[in-house]
Amino acid sequence: MQLLRTSDADFEAKFDKVVRDRRESDTNVARDVANILNEVKERGDAALVDYTARFDQHRLTSDSDWRISAEDCKTAYDALDGELRDALELAASRIRAYHESQLPEDRDYTDDIGMRLGARWLPVEAAGLYVPGGRAAYPSSLLMNAVPAKVAGVERLVVVTPTPKGESNALVLAAAHIAGVDEVWRVGGAQAVGALAYGTQRIGKVDVITGPGNAWVAEAKRQLYGVVGIDMVAGPSEILVIADKDNDPDWIAADLLSQAEHDPTSQSILITDNAPLAGMVRDSIDRALLSLPTGKTARASWDAHGLIVIVDSLEQAPALADRLAAEHAELMVADPQAMFAKLRHAGSVFLGKHTPEAVGDYVAGPNHVLPTGRRARFASGLSVLDFMKRTSFIDASDAALAAIGPAAVKLAEAEGLPAHALSISVRLNK
Amino acid sequence: MQLLRTSDADFEAKFDKVVRDRRESDTNVARDVANILNEVKERGDAALVDYTARFDQHRLTSDSDWRISAEDCKTAYDALDGELRDALELAASRIRAYHESQLPEDRDYTDDIGMRLGARWLPVEAAGLYVPGGRAAYPSSLLMNAVPAKVAGVERLVVVTPTPKGESNALVLAAAHIAGVDEVWRVGGAQAVGALAYGTQRIGKVDVITGPGNAWVAEAKRQLYGVVGIDMVAGPSEILVIADKDNDPDWIAADLLSQAEHDPTSQSILITDNAPLAGMVRDSIDRALLSLPTGKTARASWDAHGLIVIVDSLEQAPALADRLAAEHAELMVADPQAMFAKLRHAGSVFLGKHTPEAVGDYVAGPNHVLPTGRRARFASGLSVLDFMKRTSFIDASDAALAAIGPAAVKLAEAEGLPAHALSISVRLNK
Repeated sequence: MQLLRTSDADFEAKFDKVVRDRRESDTNVARDVANILNEVKERGDAALVDYTARFDQHRLTSDSDWRISAEDCKTAYDALDGELRDALELAASRIRAYHESQLPEDRDYTDDIGMRLGARWLPVEAAGLYVPGGRAAYPSSLLMNAVPAKVAGVERLVVVTPTPKGESNALVLAAAHIAGVDEVWRVGGAQAVGALAYGTQRIGKVDVITGPGNAWVAEAKRQLYGVVGIDMVAGPSEILVIADKDNDPDWIAADLLSQAEHDPTSQSILITDNAPLAGMVRDSIDRALLSLPTGKTARASWDAHGLIVIVDSLEQAPALADRLAAEHAELMVADPQAMFAKLRHAGSVFLGKHTPEAVGDYVAGPNHVLPTGRRARFASGLSVLDFMKRTSFIDASDAALAAIGPAAVKLAEAEGLPAHALSISVRLNK
Repeated sequence: MQLLRTSDADFEAKFDKVVRDRRESDTNVARDVANILNEVKERGDAALVDYTARFDQHRLTSDSDWRISAEDCKTAYDALDGELRDALELAASRIRAYHESQLPEDRDYTDDIGMRLGARWLPVEAAGLYVPGGRAAYPSSLLMNAVPAKVAGVERLVVVTPTPKGESNALVLAAAHIAGVDEVWRVGGAQAVGALAYGTQRIGKVDVITGPGNAWVAEAKRQLYGVVGIDMVAGPSEILVIADKDNDPDWIAADLLSQAEHDPTSQSILITDNAPLAGMVRDSIDRALLSLPTGKTARASWDAHGLIVIVDSLEQAPALADRLAAEHAELMVADPQAMFAKLRHAGSVFLGKHTPEAVGDYVAGPNHVLPTGRRARFASGLSVLDFMKRTSFIDASDAALAAIGPAAVKLAEAEGLPAHALSISVRLNK
């Protein structure tokens, strides 16, 4: 953990180093992934069989080795503890409501020269969703990807997920049932992403691929960007808490740890104008780490990337926050709305002390798939728009073409594109 | 040019081959581009000086070697022929009006449990726009990229454009003046894209890079996707004309040629239920190619990739069109609106015989930067959204957290994330 004060002479250099630090593991998997994708493209299912035996110790032979049926997902759902089932249903319904209010409106209007213009939104036909196996298999993550796709109107929603040694995750299957996932395939890694993009004998190709994954999965999505649509390039995630003196240090400590427990590359940052509070937060974190079941990961993250910035005044906080462009920003200050108005770059903002980031991870409704690694400067969280595409349209009357066609002819000629000019003048001169 | 009939026994196989054909040049530039980007990242301006001398025969020494001033853009504008200036101004104002109507609305509402939720859109701070030098330097393209960025509210809009042997394009500079471009740098190629993404001593980095370019530029953007936002992976473009018998073959021929004259990899396709019309279009194209100044390129495109499909009934057209997912689709049929309703995948649709695609290239208003190479299945044309990002927000009252917090605790525990659970329960149990 690093403690910086804006009043220190070397603050700017040290803070800049934090902003620039990519916190990526330096695994270079580009060539391996390219080979895997090529194999899947060329050999289809046979390549999936080979890689799945090798990486997941799972043999793809019978239909049920390949695919988890809708009935199995239903069975997993029915077997859930009642409270947990209710919690998943609550999460799904709130995520659904938020994303329904996000659906874009078509436009269709006729302008002053009588030209009809507009844009129409439609869902993609098929979307693929990567769901990690093992420890990082989160039902909440499935809901956050699958529900927006279904709200967008995607007809065929395909999950791929590795089942190492044949083991699947009952919670994930139950969530797939709730979200109305259409197919669940027991493949993972770059090979599963390749299967979604190119299609194989068994797995039909999709138009868009979303969902979290390890370095291989992320690189596969990056390499296939353009062959299909993808949600984003994900990186190490972060939380930023901006807090004034009127806060319970234990609340702030828990929020910082909720990010740190995800991964050693996660980053938790506190900005405060109150040095005693900062000290108490630090102590609270140290105490909590002693007993936290995820303490090892959280400790590694906090030690390597944790940061407390003590500012002279909270007026300085928004500018620092914009440089961090954090995935999550909690504003635990007296007037969070006023600070939100001054803060420009963040994936999602949590206003006031009663809004811990974790409530957004599960049940608030907005998406928890958010731009990481300073990408909130230009990127947005996952939304129904990631599963839709827009077609613009133009409908010119004879008169409207006569009104603006000559200008287009002039420009086409100036650009040295005579057939463009001809396609208009042949109509004007009819 | 290939002529297919849906009634032919081998139609399906041949049409499928057309759909799958990528029409890409097989230039593999990935490694060269990676080297160039790395050099620019490491050496900044010095690398730009080297590459610009080598690729553009232009020496970057004085400030005016590096940069074209706002005054020079204004001078180019003032020197324009009056009609051309009016045409550019008309185009800019119509593009501006269309894209202003595209600006997204923020959301801010409080739901039934008293939780305030919403999303806020803001422009990115800085955008970079690649403008090719030489033949493909189109002022219309500059307007189509720059105007939406300015409508979105981008404060710093930076153009990079190669000036081979020092030569710049007066029309492009005039368009930059009209669009309010803030900086014009005389660099091009992958090195210019790298400079925009990483920043150099002279050129400040940007958040989003858009604009067309050659294979090196496209690959540079692809490799930098995630470091910055990019508009899309562009590929060879296409026009699809669906026409019934009541059409002038010369109009259709001109429209098909307007795409073919762009590049030998362009594709022009006609679907009609009228074989005699198809024959007349073919003859009209052959006649036009004899005198068209861009005939060599258009001929190469038409010969290699041109396609006429004769359908038994126009009822078959939308399904074929969806498989092609063309960048541009002209519906020259009696009821274009009815056909548009049946057609799902296209970048932009041109309704009725008085709407040639070229009117959309220049003055109609919608963007002419559109998804190519079948990507309209999942991608959309350039819009103000490409220059903006959305921040979601959550504002929970004490009561709202009490209402849904327990479900979040349950889910966090089930996912094995105790600090997530703690961050909520510590507030519930206060």
